[in-house]
Amino acid sequence: MKRFLILNGPNLNRLGKREPGVYGADGLDVLEAMIRKEAATLGVLVSFLQSNHEGALIEAIHAAHDEALDGIVFNPAAFTHTSVALRDAISSGTVPVVEVHISNVHAREEFRHTTVTGAVSRAVISGLGFEGYLAALRFLAANKS
Amino acid sequence: MKRFLILNGPNLNRLGKREPGVYGADGLDVLEAMIRKEAATLGVLVSFLQSNHEGALIEAIHAAHDEALDGIVFNPAAFTHTSVALRDAISSGTVPVVEVHISNVHAREEFRHTTVTGAVSRAVISGLGFEGYLAALRFLAANKS
Amino acid sequence: MKRFLILNGPNLNRLGKREPGVYGADGLDVLEAMIRKEAATLGVLVSFLQSNHEGALIEAIHAAHDEALDGIVFNPAAFTHTSVALRDAISSGTVPVVEVHISNVHAREEFRHTTVTGAVSRAVISGLGFEGYLAALRFLAANKS
Amino acid sequence: MKRFLILNGPNLNRLGKREPGVYGADGLDVLEAMIRKEAATLGVLVSFLQSNHEGALIEAIHAAHDEALDGIVFNPAAFTHTSVALRDAISSGTVPVVEVHISNVHAREEFRHTTVTGAVSRAVISGLGFEGYLAALRFLAANKS
Amino acid sequence: MKRFLILNGPNLNRLGKREPGVYGADGLDVLEAMIRKEAATLGVLVSFLQSNHEGALIEAIHAAHDEALDGIVFNPAAFTHTSVALRDAISSGTVPVVEVHISNVHAREEFRHTTVTGAVSRAVISGLGFEGYLAALRFLAANKS
Amino acid sequence: MKRFLILNGPNLNRLGKREPGVYGADGLDVLEAMIRKEAATLGVLVSFLQSNHEGALIEAIHAAHDEALDGIVFNPAAFTHTSVALRDAISSGTVPVVEVHISNVHAREEFRHTTVTGAVSRAVISGLGFEGYLAALRFLAANKS
Amino acid sequence: MKRFLILNGPNLNRLGKREPGVYGADGLDVLEAMIRKEAATLGVLVSFLQSNHEGALIEAIHAAHDEALDGIVFNPAAFTHTSVALRDAISSGTVPVVEVHISNVHAREEFRHTTVTGAVSRAVISGLGFEGYLAALRFLAANKS
Amino acid sequence: MKRFLILNGPNLNRLGKREPGVYGADGLDVLEAMIRKEAATLGVLVSFLQSNHEGALIEAIHAAHDEALDGIVFNPAAFTHTSVALRDAISSGTVPVVEVHISNVHAREEFRHTTVTGAVSRAVISGLGFEGYLAALRFLAANKS
Amino acid sequence: MKRFLILNGPNLNRLGKREPGVYGADGLDVLEAMIRKEAATLGVLVSFLQSNHEGALIEAIHAAHDEALDGIVFNPAAFTHTSVALRDAISSGTVPVVEVHISNVHAREEFRHTTVTGAVSRAVISGLGFEGYLAALRFLAANKS
Amino acid sequence: MKRFLILNGPNLNRLGKREPGVYGADGLDVLEAMIRKEAATLGVLVSFLQSNHEGALIEAIHAAHDEALDGIVFNPAAFTHTSVALRDAISSGTVPVVEVHISNVHAREEFRHTTVTGAVSRAVISGLGFEGYLAALRFLAANKS
Amino acid sequence: MKRFLILNGPNLNRLGKREPGVYGADGLDVLEAMIRKEAATLGVLVSFLQSNHEGALIEAIHAAHDEALDGIVFNPAAFTHTSVALRDAISSGTVPVVEVHISNVHAREEFRHTTVTGAVSRAVISGLGFEGYLAALRFLAANKS
Amino acid sequence: MKRFLILNGPNLNRLGKREPGVYGADGLDVLEAMIRKEAATLGVLVSFLQSNHEGALIEAIHAAHDEALDGIVFNPAAFTHTSVALRDAISSGTVPVVEVHISNVHAREEFRHTTVTGAVSRAVISGLGFEGYLAALRFLAANKS
Repeated sequence: MKRFLILNGPNLNRLGKREPGVYGADGLDVLEAMIRKEAATLGVLVSFLQSNHEGALIEAIHAAHDEALDGIVFNPAAFTHTSVALRDAISSGTVPVVEVHISNVHAREEFRHTTVTGAVSRAVISGLGFEGYLAALRFLAANKS
Repeated sequence: MKRFLILNGPNLNRLGKREPGVYGADGLDVLEAMIRKEAATLGVLVSFLQSNHEGALIEAIHAAHDEALDGIVFNPAAFTHTSVALRDAISSGTVPVVEVHISNVHAREEFRHTTVTGAVSRAVISGLGFEGYLAALRFLAANKS
Repeated sequence: MKRFLILNGPNLNRLGKREPGVYGADGLDVLEAMIRKEAATLGVLVSFLQSNHEGALIEAIHAAHDEALDGIVFNPAAFTHTSVALRDAISSGTVPVVEVHISNVHAREEFRHTTVTGAVSRAVISGLGFEGYLAALRFLAANKS
Repeated sequence: MKRFLILNGPNLNRLGKREPGVYGADGLDVLEAMIRKEAATLGVLVSFLQSNHEGALIEAIHAAHDEALDGIVFNPAAFTHTSVALRDAISSGTVPVVEVHISNVHAREEFRHTTVTGAVSRAVISGLGFEGYLAALRFLAANKS
Repeated sequence: MKRFLILNGPNLNRLGKREPGVYGADGLDVLEAMIRKEAATLGVLVSFLQSNHEGALIEAIHAAHDEALDGIVFNPAAFTHTSVALRDAISSGTVPVVEVHISNVHAREEFRHTTVTGAVSRAVISGLGFEGYLAALRFLAANKS
Repeated sequence: MKRFLILNGPNLNRLGKREPGVYGADGLDVLEAMIRKEAATLGVLVSFLQSNHEGALIEAIHAAHDEALDGIVFNPAAFTHTSVALRDAISSGTVPVVEVHISNVHAREEFRHTTVTGAVSRAVISGLGFEGYLAALRFLAANKS
Repeated sequence: MKRFLILNGPNLNRLGKREPGVYGADGLDVLEAMIRKEAATLGVLVSFLQSNHEGALIEAIHAAHDEALDGIVFNPAAFTHTSVALRDAISSGTVPVVEVHISNVHAREEFRHTTVTGAVSRAVISGLGFEGYLAALRFLAANKS
Repeated sequence: MKRFLILNGPNLNRLGKREPGVYGADGLDVLEAMIRKEAATLGVLVSFLQSNHEGALIEAIHAAHDEALDGIVFNPAAFTHTSVALRDAISSGTVPVVEVHISNVHAREEFRHTTVTGAVSRAVISGLGFEGYLAALRFLAANKS
Repeated sequence: MKRFLILNGPNLNRLGKREPGVYGADGLDVLEAMIRKEAATLGVLVSFLQSNHEGALIEAIHAAHDEALDGIVFNPAAFTHTSVALRDAISSGTVPVVEVHISNVHAREEFRHTTVTGAVSRAVISGLGFEGYLAALRFLAANKS
Repeated sequence: MKRFLILNGPNLNRLGKREPGVYGADGLDVLEAMIRKEAATLGVLVSFLQSNHEGALIEAIHAAHDEALDGIVFNPAAFTHTSVALRDAISSGTVPVVEVHISNVHAREEFRHTTVTGAVSRAVISGLGFEGYLAALRFLAANKS
Repeated sequence: MKRFLILNGPNLNRLGKREPGVYGADGLDVLEAMIRKEAATLGVLVSFLQSNHEGALIEAIHAAHDEALDGIVFNPAAFTHTSVALRDAISSGTVPVVEVHISNVHAREEFRHTTVTGAVSRAVISGLGFEGYLAALRFLAANKS
Repeated sequence: MKRFLILNGPNLNRLGKREPGVYGADGLDVLEAMIRKEAATLGVLVSFLQSNHEGALIEAIHAAHDEALDGIVFNPAAFTHTSVALRDAISSGTVPVVEVHISNVHAREEFRHTTVTGAVSRAVISGLGFEGYLAALRFLAANKS
């Protein structure tokens, strides 16, 4: 059975409270429930981690490489635009990563248009809301390579 | 019944022939068949246009606005990075647009990291291959606003 | 009798529908009627072309040069900021061009502050609304050189 | 009866003497006479100020705001490209400003393409010669908002 | 009784030891004592946190939002110039933040002139030494909105 | 008895009238009254100057140096971002300057993030409203060096 | 017998009329006659296309790829500096392209120094006048790979 | 008898007091005495103006043009790097200007390396101390064109 | 006996697994064994820390300052290019730091050419492989100041 | 009989040994033999110089000017991108220069896209291999001006 | 027996005299003696060249390639930051180069942070003083590839 | 008796032949004669060197340092804008350098506005023609430090 990590970066524990006009009114629990449901449909295993600590996210990616997971759905949030360390963590192994952003980062401040981590990810989805996580999971679940 | 336009920009008529290492070996016909099948599943209508002419793409977007379609799945290809005219066409009406790129543009040459058109689109999907079109269509089909 | 071309670029066929907060609620027909009336007052001939195709605009300028018109009132719209080809078309002959923008481009996004075509035009008018076309026409009609 | 201020910035007292190839051979007196004549036609009042002192121009704009004039026709000349203080003076009240340049600044040195003051003005006219002032005045005189 | 968080970022635990020519010879304990004294005078409650971990600072801000504190006096130190994650933490709630720097960052290396976090803070104080924290606290304590 | 100059730059004579959403509804007289009251409390002398003329501000700083005042509280307003001459005036003597901005310049247009004058000032306070002047005065009044 | 396409971009239909000081007094017909004569000497077939429409140029390149021509001599004119779509058209197949400019673009405005299309072409010739087309044709005719 | 204007910009009234390590300990009176002595030797007339007001400097240059002086020795000080208005004043007539800086601006902060006014001056002398004024005067006095 | 800290930054726990083409096939244990052996030869004490947490690295440097170690051999990895906080940690004391990179960062992506931390380090060694750590240790061990 | 200099810059003595994948396997002797043969066909005289010394290349160009040669075929190699001195040498006389690059510099690293010397040359040929020298020679041999 | 070239660039003949605060008080002879001693220890041959002529350095590298030396220890000094020709010389053969700088270039002026030559070298050592040459030699002597 | 070196850089051997509109019609011999005459008047010794070889200029400066000359009048010509090696040569000793340019570099192409060498020179004179050398010599001859 395929196994996936759903990894959420800084401030995403405040989903539902943080700028609801941008990110919606539902919290991380609602998001995770949606993903669990989709995982059941797809017949895959999902585990979850949210952290505000770059180091913890790096180590979660390391663990995913060590355990040879089938993919990571990763919303690096603010670290998207700044973290070379997460970029290097992604390229320190072969597990494919799909980067997800809830809002459309290309329609926001210019510094949010650049993705340091997306350059070494398989794909980047931006602006599909929570649906973006599901689309990423479906893509990785169907991935053959 | 909801209606959608699947709009493909320059050089996408060469899918399957153009840099197959980047874009895959399947042609536009295969892509359109996949989309038709998904549309049937979703119970929505889809129409298709591919053009290498910026003006024709602009006018297709105008027509979509005039006909009050429920959404456009748009791969602007090279025009993504240069066309203010397409950007203005998108904002000249209210039909929501989801921008799709087959390859992950963030992993390619730096000039491909910028999206002029994505800044006024609802979402941008990059690197999911043909699956990106289906994810976009599903998102727009489920869209309530 | 002096002859002028009133040339409108991409998306201006959507005047009245496109971002009415920026461009007003009147359509291209209202604009053209205003210009016809002013032309009658000035005793000059005007012809009109709107196109979303850069190539068609280039060729309209070529024709104006070949027919030795007395001037072009040109709103290049989005092409203002990107089209070297239109710039070269303007300098490929001697018919004077006055560039017109309905809104004040200097008060909008930074990429709209630059005019590629205005650098080879006689004058640039930005923000006078439809009145800008009339001011341009009056200027060209009174032009002696 | 509507009242307008015609405000000219640094070096414009040297019109007719300064680079006649660029600005023409007529002096400020000729320009002001042309404007007075147009004002008579339009049935509006005009007052004039030329100053080489940024502070004096700022205070003239303040006075226009305090007196609730119906508009300012403003040629900030060299201050166009550098003066945040004049920009702030314009936005320190609600009198509409139309910025005028005698020559086409977009066809000159690159540093003349940027307008700091035009970003908070209603409109910018560049390259119509003295006629630019008249076009600005007509626009403001007809202004309803 | 109003409650405030005094939040200090990386390396500020080395106050008194770190570049005393720039930051002075007094340690964090002296600073905190000064603030406690001022808080007593103002009749407000203060709590303190210093951390070298971005994640811990993010979570302290989250907690402040959750507990609806009346304000945060925040010296992000080096993170000022780089941390989008702290910026997002600040905007993930409504508690007002006043950013404080002991030295005048505008008189130091150019990369210290930019504040990523200050752009979403209420105010920024730079160069008042320890007094900056007191000024910030007084401002927040008197704050009515 | 210590003596201080409270120096206000261009457009600050329009406090209360200029963009009240940004600067508040109180005028310069209210600000000066607040400062006078604080000065009385601190037992120091204050004098005031507001000018829209860069030259007058330069000369006020020169005079402060010549008279060996104990400090200047300076809001250079728009000149903050452009005036090398004011910067040089500050460094042409040894009277300490604290720069004050009523609004938080770091939360406004990007060109307002840079301070030419702040680089040679003792401190910069931005966003504390009128309170910023009082904080500056208290700091300078307590200054021993 | 080897077959080649001679492809000319926007405004080149105005050769002989457009800025004769830069491009010479001979028209496109003279150029094409010169090329035909050289083709006869070399024993190769040449076909010609000039278009002001980017889309038409794209499709001509597609056709050349589909027909497996032995090479394209391409003067993209203004599109050289802006067209990612033509660049992608060139890389959408394997027919070698030699880019030709009549004038020396490196001696003109700075924006003409960059070639978007030349980066994926085999060679770039700039400033040899009409002779540049002949040199390109000879090179491609002798090409073995 | 040839006539020259010695024009000094902002803060130069503080020569001798301002950063003596950079500008020396002698005041403006010493400088002017040195110049007077050299003028006597050369048999030319000199007049002097120092102003901290950009407008006054502009008008002094205008007057020099009107009176057809034989040259201006101009130290624009801080305005060197910012004043387009002074640049335009210089080009608003034909009197030759030699720009002088007491210190070597190329050895100071990077923003002091650029001279807006020097671009339209005949020559620029930087770092010769007071001697620079004498060298400029000798050059202009010997000037034949 | 001299004491040194060997400090390794993010992702270096994956040495031997991460991009072996770039970093080699040996793990962190092999590296540490090599360093221990060299330390024995040199007669110095070494301690080791690897962390993916910027905060932990900062605190390790603080501790080294507090314990007055004789030097730090530091591979900041990805933090090299982004961490002002680590830079400030290094300058918050006087222990000399030699920065080491296993690969030659100057031959990699452009963003890896800049070292934020190296600017306050004693030396930077890049591309000597594991040998770089030994060279750094020898240098620090022989260091007299 | 017309005379030409074939001038080769730094590292071109290593043709055939240097990066054969880029520059081919033939040495400078093969290139010079090809050129001699072409010169015989054209009935012109050619002389050759290769130097790794910028000064020697400068002086060869000076000599060509002094001897009034009919042209220089110049491959400045690495100096293309950096040498203002060679640029000035070319403009220090009237002998026409055609710049040649064996590989297509526009398809290589970005710093190779700029030509300092080409801006004052008659033409630039890039990517035709050794054939580029022959094309340049034929062009200069046929040159009438 | 392995053979190495120790190559020193411009101004290094002035070691000991040039900015001793930066480069130390020992001359090139002391450096070369240290290297000779280390070479004896390592059992390798070393030859030395210092030149202020870029061309001579290029040719020394060529010779090293031709003689198939086992490595070059190269301090390009000022040429590090500017010489594309030396970069091309390094890549014109396969002898490995280790670049050495006596001082830490990353702690000096910003233009010294970039290394044009280091991008094609095996390694770069900066700030180890004379010891850097020895570390480079040891590395190359132990090099197996 | 004081001794000075008059040092001229690349292409200055072509004075009188090179762009006479910019540099005048007199050759290097005329310049040197003028300087000799001035030297006689001043009672100082002058020696001359012109070279197109950067290395030779570097070594001339080294020699001047070694011989403890009283100053160098240096026209680095094109090397002004590019040569870090000459900059380092100047700072490798204490002989003062005055940089001279015949034309006003600030009125020419933008890349000529920057002086790499002037940043470490005592003074820079630009646009005084040959007189600039005399002014430099007089300054150095009178120099006391």
